[in-house]
Amino acid sequence: MKEFKIAVLPGDGIGPEIVKQAVKVMDAVSEKFGVKLKYEYALIGGAAIDETGIPFPEETKEIILSSDAVLLGAVGGPKWDNLPFEIRPERALLGMRKLLNAFANLRPAKLYDELIDASTLKPEVVKGVDIMVVRELTSGVYFGIPRGIFVDGDEKVGINTLRYYEHEVERIAKVAFEVARKRNKKVTSVDKANVLEATVLWREVVERVHKDYEDVELEHMYVDNAAMQIIRYPKQFDVIVTTNIFGDILSDACAMLTGSLGMLPSASIGGKIGLYEPIHGSAPDIAGQNIANPIATINSVGMMFTYSFDMPEVEKAIDTAVKNVLAKGYRTRDIYSEGTKLVSTEEMGDLIAEEI
Amino acid sequence: MKEFKIAVLPGDGIGPEIVKQAVKVMDAVSEKFGVKLKYEYALIGGAAIDETGIPFPEETKEIILSSDAVLLGAVGGPKWDNLPFEIRPERALLGMRKLLNAFANLRPAKLYDELIDASTLKPEVVKGVDIMVVRELTSGVYFGIPRGIFVDGDEKVGINTLRYYEHEVERIAKVAFEVARKRNKKVTSVDKANVLEATVLWREVVERVHKDYEDVELEHMYVDNAAMQIIRYPKQFDVIVTTNIFGDILSDACAMLTGSLGMLPSASIGGKIGLYEPIHGSAPDIAGQNIANPIATINSVGMMFTYSFDMPEVEKAIDTAVKNVLAKGYRTRDIYSEGTKLVSTEEMGDLIAEEI
Ligand SMILES: CC(C)[C@H](C(=O)O)[C@@H](O)C(=O)O
Ligand SMILES: CC(C)[C@H](C(=O)O)[C@@H](O)C(=O)O
Repeated sequence: MKEFKIAVLPGDGIGPEIVKQAVKVMDAVSEKFGVKLKYEYALIGGAAIDETGIPFPEETKEIILSSDAVLLGAVGGPKWDNLPFEIRPERALLGMRKLLNAFANLRPAKLYDELIDASTLKPEVVKGVDIMVVRELTSGVYFGIPRGIFVDGDEKVGINTLRYYEHEVERIAKVAFEVARKRNKKVTSVDKANVLEATVLWREVVERVHKDYEDVELEHMYVDNAAMQIIRYPKQFDVIVTTNIFGDILSDACAMLTGSLGMLPSASIGGKIGLYEPIHGSAPDIAGQNIANPIATINSVGMMFTYSFDMPEVEKAIDTAVKNVLAKGYRTRDIYSEGTKLVSTEEMGDLIAEEI
Repeated sequence: MKEFKIAVLPGDGIGPEIVKQAVKVMDAVSEKFGVKLKYEYALIGGAAIDETGIPFPEETKEIILSSDAVLLGAVGGPKWDNLPFEIRPERALLGMRKLLNAFANLRPAKLYDELIDASTLKPEVVKGVDIMVVRELTSGVYFGIPRGIFVDGDEKVGINTLRYYEHEVERIAKVAFEVARKRNKKVTSVDKANVLEATVLWREVVERVHKDYEDVELEHMYVDNAAMQIIRYPKQFDVIVTTNIFGDILSDACAMLTGSLGMLPSASIGGKIGLYEPIHGSAPDIAGQNIANPIATINSVGMMFTYSFDMPEVEKAIDTAVKNVLAKGYRTRDIYSEGTKLVSTEEMGDLIAEEI
């Protein structure tokens, strides 16, 4: 019997309640697919700050590093927003990505036909949208040094460094082409090569890697144009590959096209241990009320089985279960519309677990 | 009689034909408002490369520096896309912004009710959208050093530097608050202060400047969230102030909401001489066919009269003329829809000039 150890990090806000539903679903998967799953819980973000004074304690690092994959709820909230930069909850997230060498962040933005009206875009524009954003996650301006706030003459100056090494671009480009091969065989590489030399190199390396993937179509697009095209004609995209900061911005724009952020998962892979989390935040305003949508976290479990455990059949099963529950009309508050059946976080978790 | 000297830079692609219409409108303005306008034509971008080998010749610099304002068509095109980084048409644009110290780029994204159906967003989401993006234009990652592609060990590394000095943030924040005062008194400052120290300083300085503008509401938003909110609920925005690269991306997203890029002007101000240009590009695919929409360039003339010549009544007159022509049903191809009257670039220019 296959056996996997999963580090479970509920985090802050709605994190604990949505992760609990994902665990229900993992239990159901364990039974149905005959795999043994061992959960190890650990603190992160604000929850860790409250307990230990820092957002990413050593103990959590150890638990993560001895696991096969990590499931994260969400971190952060107004309670910790005024802490010094160095000990804010976000440090934990960035630290974890780096620790795991999770350089490839996969963010699918896929429209559920049942939820098409939730989009602010016209149905004919978004129907069938299915974009995979492949964001570089452990380099670029997020991590480059020098960085910080310095004094120069009689004023302060804030500095960050956008930096990409060839090997960093190479490996993310490979991931993008591999992913595209299993999808619609088109990669749009987004850069600002008309202004930023770091992305001139990016473009050059992506073209070189493309030589090994000639069955996949490659196009280049400037980031400002990409922001437009995502709104103008999103169906033109299959896989988008881009830098850390551009990926942060564009993946959120793509997600918003679907109108249902509460559904969208993410995977951060590349190292030995993958990290899986919903793309939405910790939503402190609705935490503890049993109304949050657990589906994004449940879908993240699906990605975990595909990318960390090489069991894509589980992702398919979860996907089907979610679609069936939606087809039966069940909705959490964020995706509720007239004529559908409003259910709580717990109920949604139960319904999907039962379907599996 | 007031007299102004305007440097006219037609540039590439559709640049010459749309600028020609803007000149017609300026002639009409000159007559109606009793101002004398002197035009000095100069080469820039690809047109300058073809003639002189470089995109921003000394002669053009001289003409610009001895003018009261600059009107630009558009620069660039595939013909010059494979030139070395240093002599590409874009260098001229960036060089000109720096030369003019035009640190504040104002990009209004305003929906014309007549063109509401051109948006890919639902009418109820975009009706009434009226956003002014105030983008920092002469600093940030566009200009920071060190920059370039270097060799480190046995591979290349691409580097750019995101850098903001306090005084640079201060002056752009002031512009944003001043602009907001004349509008709906709300500023959204967009940064990534949870990750980038350069924008921690940005936020700190914006808050300090805000103390002199307490009648204006200030909110801060992370750039990823801003990309979402622009799609989710664009009417929440009045003035958005942000860094050079974030402004590049978000202003294009805002523009695309309106669905009619061919209408949108921009002003780059802050120095003694302002620079005015449409936000769209040189559209080489339709150049020379007399089908391009000249209204963005004509609206840029409107901004020129407000910001460089302190004659907002001219901008109002141009605005009214454009609206009247639209109300009469005239449309260029890009904004044409059934039941309206298709006109050429020349005809549109004539119609608006006549209205004035
Ligand atoms: C919270 C923040 C540090 C993070 C990021 O910018 O990467 C988040 O926005 C994300 O996209 O996962
Ligand atoms: C052409 C390019 C250099 C320019 C920019 O990035 O500033 C353009 O996109 C713009 O927004 O004016």
